[in-house]
Amino acid sequence: MSELNDLDASTLAAGVRTGTIRVVDIAEAVIRRIEQRQPEIQAFAYFDADLVRDRAKLLDAVPRKGPLHGVPIGIKDVIHTFDMPTTHNSPRYANSHTRIDAACVDTLRAAGALIVGKTVTTEFAATLRGGATRNPRRPQHTPGGSSSGSAAGVADNQMTLALGTQTGGSTIRPASFCGVFGWKPTWGAISREGLKMSSTTLDTLGIYARSAADLALLADVYDIDAATGTLPQSLAGLKVGICRTPLWDKAGEATQTAMQETASLLRNAGVTVCDIVMPAEFDTLHQSHRFIARREGRASFLNEYRTTPSLHDDFKATVENRAGTSPGQVRQAYRHADLCRALWEDIAAAYDFVITPSAAGEAPFGLDSTGDASFNSIWTLLHVPVVNVPGLTGPTGLPVGISVTTRRYEDRRAIAAAGLVSSLFAVRGAMAAE
Amino acid sequence: MSELNDLDASTLAAGVRTGTIRVVDIAEAVIRRIEQRQPEIQAFAYFDADLVRDRAKLLDAVPRKGPLHGVPIGIKDVIHTFDMPTTHNSPRYANSHTRIDAACVDTLRAAGALIVGKTVTTEFAATLRGGATRNPRRPQHTPGGSSSGSAAGVADNQMTLALGTQTGGSTIRPASFCGVFGWKPTWGAISREGLKMSSTTLDTLGIYARSAADLALLADVYDIDAATGTLPQSLAGLKVGICRTPLWDKAGEATQTAMQETASLLRNAGVTVCDIVMPAEFDTLHQSHRFIARREGRASFLNEYRTTPSLHDDFKATVENRAGTSPGQVRQAYRHADLCRALWEDIAAAYDFVITPSAAGEAPFGLDSTGDASFNSIWTLLHVPVVNVPGLTGPTGLPVGISVTTRRYEDRRAIAAAGLVSSLFAVRGAMAAE
Repeated sequence: MSELNDLDASTLAAGVRTGTIRVVDIAEAVIRRIEQRQPEIQAFAYFDADLVRDRAKLLDAVPRKGPLHGVPIGIKDVIHTFDMPTTHNSPRYANSHTRIDAACVDTLRAAGALIVGKTVTTEFAATLRGGATRNPRRPQHTPGGSSSGSAAGVADNQMTLALGTQTGGSTIRPASFCGVFGWKPTWGAISREGLKMSSTTLDTLGIYARSAADLALLADVYDIDAATGTLPQSLAGLKVGICRTPLWDKAGEATQTAMQETASLLRNAGVTVCDIVMPAEFDTLHQSHRFIARREGRASFLNEYRTTPSLHDDFKATVENRAGTSPGQVRQAYRHADLCRALWEDIAAAYDFVITPSAAGEAPFGLDSTGDASFNSIWTLLHVPVVNVPGLTGPTGLPVGISVTTRRYEDRRAIAAAGLVSSLFAVRGAMAAE
Repeated sequence: MSELNDLDASTLAAGVRTGTIRVVDIAEAVIRRIEQRQPEIQAFAYFDADLVRDRAKLLDAVPRKGPLHGVPIGIKDVIHTFDMPTTHNSPRYANSHTRIDAACVDTLRAAGALIVGKTVTTEFAATLRGGATRNPRRPQHTPGGSSSGSAAGVADNQMTLALGTQTGGSTIRPASFCGVFGWKPTWGAISREGLKMSSTTLDTLGIYARSAADLALLADVYDIDAATGTLPQSLAGLKVGICRTPLWDKAGEATQTAMQETASLLRNAGVTVCDIVMPAEFDTLHQSHRFIARREGRASFLNEYRTTPSLHDDFKATVENRAGTSPGQVRQAYRHADLCRALWEDIAAAYDFVITPSAAGEAPFGLDSTGDASFNSIWTLLHVPVVNVPGLTGPTGLPVGISVTTRRYEDRRAIAAAGLVSSLFAVRGAMAAE
């Protein structure tokens, strides 16, 4: 029988609403799971069971606040929370506790969320150097990063939902490695106020869940635009693009197979599947991502550089512009991104949605690096919504996600499509098991 | 004889460095001025003389921290400061005191700045509804907004420098109305972490000073890129564009005269002056600014809307999308902005710098509205640096600024040009006075 921590947000919130589930019982289930698993998985940078208990009691005592009343949510440790420290996995902020909620957390609390703790990030959400978190599917492997604890915690049923961030591939890659849904919203659609910043062109919030329905619930909470036209209710008759991107030679066997399998399952479901070959302008788009990330990162980490002599050399290199990025290169990178956004929008308009890799393959062995974000960074720069769909596995049995994307401000379409694709994977999994 | 509060940052910092000026004496001069002027001008939302005295004593006691050691700086009340409240001119935040410095304040403190207080903003820096601040040049008139207190405070020698923000024209318009230098940096060049956000595409920090040399000092502090090529040392031989923009019919007599006078002074100084007629694509760019500001504002103020029933109807209208802005309109606005950025960059590349209006005219009478941002919003959307140059006056004797702009990441060129133009205005003023 399922414990409360295994259920999805909609089920929990419905139970709380009708009085069949108490928030304190949800809290106890989550606390038990966390206390059991934290020593091995280390999803949390900060966890205080008594604080969670107190909030749960309060939520049971007040009228229902909204659609997330009593739902346990983890918050990446680069996002400010008034009642918990925010340390950014940085020595400078080891004892930092700002008395403020980020806008995205404020909105969650207004909907009744039970914030359960702060989840492990790589330093400032801006390095590949591994955090302490392990992949719950196989603990010798990285969960991906930088939103390591949020992805691992949701995958491991230590929380129902979680917030992360993405500048390169920090939301989608961990979702793929841990086998959960991950949603990078359209740039600008959800406030970034109160988050550690790295790049104003690239940073977005990220969201983790174990079902597409839960992502749709968060799309309500975050007031995401209604989709243009009706959302797809079934796959038959849809037109879907398969975009391997100019970086396809980085795809390992697991990702190659996952993409083939997805295309084949879609075809069998009555979808018109078309290969999208990106125009030549996209060949170097990942390099423009790098120029922009470097220049804006230089501005973002300047204050750390000026105040903190012990700052890791990764950030010193960025602020000192050791790569020698020139203003002209940055201007050119902005123009390149602007051009590709227009080109991509016209391409994507011809499809109900587009499928693209979430990662190069299964989660790599070891915790030294959180893995390769190559397949994510161009979509981050294009500002489009991306949803990782779990359900496929690689040759060693670890999860391999695929991404659904659409035009900007079509997040609800991407989430609905992810739900349909996920159902295909589930049916296939059930048939394979028979 | 000048008081210490009348001097510029470079002079103060040099005096502190050589031991001829004590920070406590700077502090006392500023405190005297503020206490004398606050009842009428109301530049400050928060001012604690003892806190300023304590910081000044500390700065006298420690080794020199950097190029702003002891320089009094005001901080707009939408920017977080660990030792002072941040209230956003919003009832919800009336008692809000977050224990954090925004990145831009952190960098100032690392350079030795003496933070003197929080300056008045319109609510969330996102309305035209007037704050309490009066224009120090003529107190029945608005100082402009939303960075009202920062512009007025610098103009009135209550502080040497100040930070503001800009989403439409919130830095440049008040600089023009109050007769001080204002600098809106290239989008992305200075961190926005720790600022109240309104629009991720549009928000930037803003900076006030009484000399171009002080802006250059802050360009050092904020690690702004060295200009490509050498900075102009004199005007003779330069090529300057005069851009009246497609909104020229909004320019009143004061602004029309200021633009003519500037062109004429530049010609007399040996500059090749060329009129720039923007291509037709720019005719509706201010409308795209509005679509983007509305959609991103909807995301930015969602948490206030969900938590604060008494929120002003201005913000409710934005979050409820009463204007009915569609995702398609927003996508089109982004594309329009992207296209115009590329077009403008090619146009601007042909000139050493470009002159354009800072405001429609002199500061309007009354405190009900902070005035019209029409002449600022397209530059904000284009992401280029803009520097307001004071020194001209309108028919009623109030200041009328003109703006200098360049390509992105050429802020140092814009600042140097502003200094040269300012010298022209000063010579003309001296001759007119004879």
